[in-house]
Amino acid sequence: MTVVAFIGLGQMGAPMARNLMRHGHTLRVHDLNPQPVAALVAEGAHGCDSPAQAAQGAEVVITMLPTGPQVHAALLGERGALETLDPQALVIDMSTILPTESDALCAALAARGISFMDAPVGRTSDHAIAGTLLILAGGSEAQVARATPLLRCLGDTLIAAGGPGRGIRLKLINNYMSIALNALSAEAAVLCEALGLPLDKALEVMNLTPAVRGHFGTTWPQRVLKGDLSPTFMIDLAHKDLGLALTLAGQLRVPLPMGAAARELYSQARAQGRGRQDWSAILEQMRAAAGRPSVVPEGTQ
Amino acid sequence: MTVVAFIGLGQMGAPMARNLMRHGHTLRVHDLNPQPVAALVAEGAHGCDSPAQAAQGAEVVITMLPTGPQVHAALLGERGALETLDPQALVIDMSTILPTESDALCAALAARGISFMDAPVGRTSDHAIAGTLLILAGGSEAQVARATPLLRCLGDTLIAAGGPGRGIRLKLINNYMSIALNALSAEAAVLCEALGLPLDKALEVMNLTPAVRGHFGTTWPQRVLKGDLSPTFMIDLAHKDLGLALTLAGQLRVPLPMGAAARELYSQARAQGRGRQDWSAILEQMRAAAGRPSVVPEGTQ
Amino acid sequence: MTVVAFIGLGQMGAPMARNLMRHGHTLRVHDLNPQPVAALVAEGAHGCDSPAQAAQGAEVVITMLPTGPQVHAALLGERGALETLDPQALVIDMSTILPTESDALCAALAARGISFMDAPVGRTSDHAIAGTLLILAGGSEAQVARATPLLRCLGDTLIAAGGPGRGIRLKLINNYMSIALNALSAEAAVLCEALGLPLDKALEVMNLTPAVRGHFGTTWPQRVLKGDLSPTFMIDLAHKDLGLALTLAGQLRVPLPMGAAARELYSQARAQGRGRQDWSAILEQMRAAAGRPSVVPEGTQ
Amino acid sequence: MTVVAFIGLGQMGAPMARNLMRHGHTLRVHDLNPQPVAALVAEGAHGCDSPAQAAQGAEVVITMLPTGPQVHAALLGERGALETLDPQALVIDMSTILPTESDALCAALAARGISFMDAPVGRTSDHAIAGTLLILAGGSEAQVARATPLLRCLGDTLIAAGGPGRGIRLKLINNYMSIALNALSAEAAVLCEALGLPLDKALEVMNLTPAVRGHFGTTWPQRVLKGDLSPTFMIDLAHKDLGLALTLAGQLRVPLPMGAAARELYSQARAQGRGRQDWSAILEQMRAAAGRPSVVPEGTQ
Repeated sequence: MTVVAFIGLGQMGAPMARNLMRHGHTLRVHDLNPQPVAALVAEGAHGCDSPAQAAQGAEVVITMLPTGPQVHAALLGERGALETLDPQALVIDMSTILPTESDALCAALAARGISFMDAPVGRTSDHAIAGTLLILAGGSEAQVARATPLLRCLGDTLIAAGGPGRGIRLKLINNYMSIALNALSAEAAVLCEALGLPLDKALEVMNLTPAVRGHFGTTWPQRVLKGDLSPTFMIDLAHKDLGLALTLAGQLRVPLPMGAAARELYSQARAQGRGRQDWSAILEQMRAAAGRPSVVPEGTQ
Repeated sequence: MTVVAFIGLGQMGAPMARNLMRHGHTLRVHDLNPQPVAALVAEGAHGCDSPAQAAQGAEVVITMLPTGPQVHAALLGERGALETLDPQALVIDMSTILPTESDALCAALAARGISFMDAPVGRTSDHAIAGTLLILAGGSEAQVARATPLLRCLGDTLIAAGGPGRGIRLKLINNYMSIALNALSAEAAVLCEALGLPLDKALEVMNLTPAVRGHFGTTWPQRVLKGDLSPTFMIDLAHKDLGLALTLAGQLRVPLPMGAAARELYSQARAQGRGRQDWSAILEQMRAAAGRPSVVPEGTQ
Repeated sequence: MTVVAFIGLGQMGAPMARNLMRHGHTLRVHDLNPQPVAALVAEGAHGCDSPAQAAQGAEVVITMLPTGPQVHAALLGERGALETLDPQALVIDMSTILPTESDALCAALAARGISFMDAPVGRTSDHAIAGTLLILAGGSEAQVARATPLLRCLGDTLIAAGGPGRGIRLKLINNYMSIALNALSAEAAVLCEALGLPLDKALEVMNLTPAVRGHFGTTWPQRVLKGDLSPTFMIDLAHKDLGLALTLAGQLRVPLPMGAAARELYSQARAQGRGRQDWSAILEQMRAAAGRPSVVPEGTQ
Repeated sequence: MTVVAFIGLGQMGAPMARNLMRHGHTLRVHDLNPQPVAALVAEGAHGCDSPAQAAQGAEVVITMLPTGPQVHAALLGERGALETLDPQALVIDMSTILPTESDALCAALAARGISFMDAPVGRTSDHAIAGTLLILAGGSEAQVARATPLLRCLGDTLIAAGGPGRGIRLKLINNYMSIALNALSAEAAVLCEALGLPLDKALEVMNLTPAVRGHFGTTWPQRVLKGDLSPTFMIDLAHKDLGLALTLAGQLRVPLPMGAAARELYSQARAQGRGRQDWSAILEQMRAAAGRPSVVPEGTQ
């Protein structure tokens, strides 16, 4: 069993600390809000009035805080965990913060001889309560191995993301995609309603196509990911169909800002000579726009 | 066996006409471009120099043309199919055009006593060749029943979309979603590359989440589609995470116009008092923005 | 004095026809809506039940209609003006339609030996009433000279835009800029209000800068328009400041979709190696995105 | 003459410090980069290796640094100005940072009894050299009066923005508008080029309209700013004209992401029942989207 300092007892942190306790670990908890501290103390945790106090005697420090500066303060600030931390301890930041902030923390702790890894979580507060979070562990193999018994108390899916900083990077990519997709899905659903179509009927079709199945595993593997831009469905036609949908939405007074942005991306792809390339070549276009290298071999485009 | 006038022999139309012929139907084909006409004539079709000529003696007319005005001209213009068409014939437009254009054609043909349905297709030219298209049949039950033996020669998935005009509406919704999603996927993939993460690693995570699985069948059914806006993941947090990704992308010089548009949608949702609602409530927000009714029962929000 | 067939008596067309009549011209008017026809007849115009009737004996036909297909029908359709028009007459389309539609009309009329020019208008219905419209005359010198006595009855500012089709092109550019700028101004004004600043105070500053004065005559002439991209204010800093404003707006829950799109354009400019170029180089970036030639001489960038 | 600690000698800071020196003030300068320090020392300044050293004996401290955390460190960090500063001194931050960061600095200094104001600058490095910057002084009347003799050495236009924090807020509004407008102007200019129109010709028209003159002083004062939404130019028509421009741009392969975002804003305005309101009502729409109060009196809409 491990002595864990747990700092940050919000909607996610509190049930996570509770799950560690349930598995027999010793919890030293801190939060600026006294309420969740008191609740956990009532269940057997040691309440602490600062990160420094929480860190006393801890083998592992876990931070689960809203922003990077707050994690920085909890670890390196006045009355921060570093003031009392055993140099052999492991610090695991499970917050969602900027990768640059995470990298800076890692470097600052390394300079003091402290081992730091990130392990942000996916899924929801329901999953935090159930101990079924998705955990993206950014650490060396040794760090991940050391953290695993604890992380297993919190989640049922543990992905080793690579070295420190990789967990938070993976999480931001995943959340970027899922959160933006949520809004795009709502645009399509409202257009569907405005057309007088039941969403169920539309889903019957979309479940058969990349509209629901996505592109990563369907249209891309045989084309752009292989460096083959020969068209099964041309950028020009994709541009045309988006234009039809936007004209239609204009008639129906359904605002579609994401689709409008997408159409201009296809327009730029056409301007760059990609009109007769496969629609998956939009990936190549994005790479070019970001000044990043193509992966299509010379001569095959 | 049926006598079919097929008008429009492009990348999709030509293999479709060929498949009908292979199944024993009699084809009368027309295109402004003489090349594909000649090719099909060599395989046994009757070449025609106008839609009017093609329609002579045809039981069914199929149009597969790039734009609404072209379909209009082929049917109702000078030397158009209507000049010679048997009043008992069925007209099937398989083009991708505006629903308003399709509705207008349907009305114009109805006024002349001609039966009109739409049946646009999904998937690619490879599928057109293989006869494995997805077909969205917009017609009455009787129309669809009559068309089915022909459509089965063209596709392996036939969805009865409802009455005339519903096929093209379904198609535009589906294509809106799949084409915009393609561009959003490319944004995420390039951000991933710029972060130094292999796409495979990101997919290992995203395959477990709505990032790949989508929202229609995952996050929405238990929440917004049930009228339950209690949060498992709050709009405020979705806004925060998109902001982190955009800040990160700004540092890395990766343009993310669709994600940027999405963030402003979440910002508007927050401004409308939805910050502490579930992220699936973005659907409710889009409905409100489009001036459309909520489906959340009063008092449950 | 001239006999004028005036087709289209909407919010703009009706007062325009009235002003021609007041200056002594003979008006033959038509509209699908009988009300404005009756009103003008009461003031001395000849009411006509079709464009063909209106065109009888007319020296000039003016169209002022909502869409391109409507102008097409009024001129070339059944009971259209061409059925009766004197081949010596001049047709002036003052509607706002697509340039491609205007070009097609011009060609179709030329094929019938009829002289066609476009002359769309700027400003508002108040100006139509006052006869103080801005008129963008797209025609040959001879056409514009012939039209000028009539156009002077309608507007106080007449700009010779160049040959046929140039008037409508100029108008769309102007309206693109002024309509989009209107929305951008509203974004800035609401951000201002949300910051607790009176708009008057902000205007005191913005009136001194390109924020109100624009860029065409201020920041561009000494820099990008001269091919000089040496920075007075760098793209990198412009990107930074937009990012600050968007972060701020995110805190204040003010959606800024146009500013968000702008930031991604600067991000792309940075990705293309323009971070340390002058902010006016965003023009060069847009040219590159549209696949259009730079005007910056080689070696000066 | 005043003893001034000047911290931050970049493209803007260095010429500003120089101008203060030329007017006879005593300069104590610091920058992490030794080069500009050496250059100013050669001209008579006292070089200092930390903000703390620079602040010794200073009557005024001026910071001109890239980011908020850097200003924070220069004032409150280790070897920061506060370690040595005379409590009677005035601190003027002329950097461009987040208002929330500026507010926090103001509060932190107030807690130590130090007077803090902000005075960010407008215009370019050329103006910094010439001493003709635009300065937005955010401070009490007494603070601004005290700072004026120094600020007059740096700029020829000094605007009293109101209390502390108002200068930076004004600046961000101004820069938001001017930087986004720069990109929008480039969209219009490239569309113009793609249409084959010389920009000069387009400017001849746009100089007569809100396209260049803006809306704050033209279309808004008689309409939305007076609470009058009766149309001179309707939202519906603005939406139509933007749609034409975007269709045209789609044909010409000119990407217009800002205009595309704008069109969706007008679409939302139409969905909210504003289609027949004046286009200036887009301001009212933005207020509604941001959850902010209308200024149109009840009953007049």
